[in-house]
Amino acid sequence: MTAPLNPRPPTGEFSLIDWIRRQAKAGQSTVLGIGDDCAIVRPSPDSDWLVTTDMLMDGRHFRLDQDGPEAVGFKALGVNLSDIAAMAGVPVAAVVAVALPKAHAVALAQGIHAGMAPLAERFGVDLVGGDTNAWDGPLVISITVLGETTARGPVRRSGAVPGDAILVTGPLGGSLKSGRHLRPQPRLLEALALHQAAPLHAMIDISDGLASDLGHILEESGGLGAILDADAIPIHPDAASLSDSDARSPLDHALNDGEDFELCVVVAPDDASRLIATPPRPAVVHRIGQVQGEPGLWLRTRDGQLIAIHARGFDHLHQ
Amino acid sequence: MTAPLNPRPPTGEFSLIDWIRRQAKAGQSTVLGIGDDCAIVRPSPDSDWLVTTDMLMDGRHFRLDQDGPEAVGFKALGVNLSDIAAMAGVPVAAVVAVALPKAHAVALAQGIHAGMAPLAERFGVDLVGGDTNAWDGPLVISITVLGETTARGPVRRSGAVPGDAILVTGPLGGSLKSGRHLRPQPRLLEALALHQAAPLHAMIDISDGLASDLGHILEESGGLGAILDADAIPIHPDAASLSDSDARSPLDHALNDGEDFELCVVVAPDDASRLIATPPRPAVVHRIGQVQGEPGLWLRTRDGQLIAIHARGFDHLHQ
Repeated sequence: MTAPLNPRPPTGEFSLIDWIRRQAKAGQSTVLGIGDDCAIVRPSPDSDWLVTTDMLMDGRHFRLDQDGPEAVGFKALGVNLSDIAAMAGVPVAAVVAVALPKAHAVALAQGIHAGMAPLAERFGVDLVGGDTNAWDGPLVISITVLGETTARGPVRRSGAVPGDAILVTGPLGGSLKSGRHLRPQPRLLEALALHQAAPLHAMIDISDGLASDLGHILEESGGLGAILDADAIPIHPDAASLSDSDARSPLDHALNDGEDFELCVVVAPDDASRLIATPPRPAVVHRIGQVQGEPGLWLRTRDGQLIAIHARGFDHLHQ
Repeated sequence: MTAPLNPRPPTGEFSLIDWIRRQAKAGQSTVLGIGDDCAIVRPSPDSDWLVTTDMLMDGRHFRLDQDGPEAVGFKALGVNLSDIAAMAGVPVAAVVAVALPKAHAVALAQGIHAGMAPLAERFGVDLVGGDTNAWDGPLVISITVLGETTARGPVRRSGAVPGDAILVTGPLGGSLKSGRHLRPQPRLLEALALHQAAPLHAMIDISDGLASDLGHILEESGGLGAILDADAIPIHPDAASLSDSDARSPLDHALNDGEDFELCVVVAPDDASRLIATPPRPAVVHRIGQVQGEPGLWLRTRDGQLIAIHARGFDHLHQ
């Protein structure tokens, strides 16, 4: 144990980062890192482990020739950390498997590591192991992250109830426009701060698109529905910018583009009001709608009209 | 099993996730399986977690057109379980990420699952999560397995001392000949039985070749050496068979072929004698040599001559 647990809830971003680090260090989680058949990690007492894995492929989740290996490393770790954030967990350790194009294997491995290292450092994640291969195919990277739950417990997708408020942590849409899809900012601190401030009922990170990802919450919560207020959904400037060059409205982009990596959070309505009135830093939340008992996802326009939303989020298997 | 198998074949990503989820059954460690941002696993009291990851690529670790997806699933899980065996651990949970060739994505996913399921079932491993993608590239599969240590603790590569005996759990060489490289039989039970019967000093699974993998133990144990007795190394019939068709001796195959997935075990000499006289079932061990204080790996021939062994095991990055 290098530092005592902070008895007080963290108040700012940097103290929260410190707090996260101390959570991870408290268990001296990494007993054995790279260099054996397995890594060995030691759980903190009374904590469960969160496990998540994401694989990224050249031409699908990134374009190596345009984006470069550093962006690949950053994104690959970032999307996994975003999944830990979506459960209100504290990331602890990661293992990284790569298939590197043979011709530049070593340089690519170094570039990928350079992309992962700052994120890993920032959030106190130990890179404890991996599997490094070279081949004639395109670059593939697969990361698995282990995280710990806090005393508040994990936040699942399945806890939404009718009447709950639906929040998001930032503006949505158009992530491809400015390359934000390569720079996921995992909302780990935001998730922990929010979960500390109020019991979150359900949460997901927006990777496939708001409509699609909110749909997962509604489905996992027993087949519920929701009404979203068109005017309340925060739209990213990138969505407006993209809208100029295609036939889709900014709102359409905000609802259906993926890879924003903001959080979609479901809480009791009173808690929502409190979180909006007194945002637990560094989290900022926007109330965008309400959970309904009846299935179906609806958009309420300014004049009160309800329009059915059909999620067109990313289908990993068929697109 | 909480639900019957889906009578219809799944047609899209989400129905495939449903289908896989129904195949998975919740074990004691699995708090939450497939279907959220992360899986949740609960550690046993006083147990550390082992974490290992291995990625397999078409054309490199298997040939999909010849071997088929079921063999790919079996091998991908088997090699990871072999790493858990090499630490004398108990496998608990696995996450599986795949990049599937688009044209046959669903059928391939089902075939891969059919290959993993019997191994997972046999060793009580829960398939708790994954990431399923399709693309225009070749098949890639990456599995991460979590395992628990036993009360005896994990067996690392680094605990060999001069004078220790070197054992292997089975005959070596020629695994490519009969397709054994596709059917790794993880020596999990053998490792646990051996570690229960005697304090194992060091262990590794033979994936790159005996000379190469023993070399890892010697290096990690502080730069030791070893003498292997040529006549004592158990040679697989496949090695002899391969030897008929190439210019290499059966012993050369036994020393340098990879993917036998037997264990190389280092123990005190008295313990070695005991393990050989009274093998702890189901383990069977062969004493093949002795650890030396001076670096270097040597083969002792029947007439007592010492020949330097230069490991030619599989180089993952450059072959």
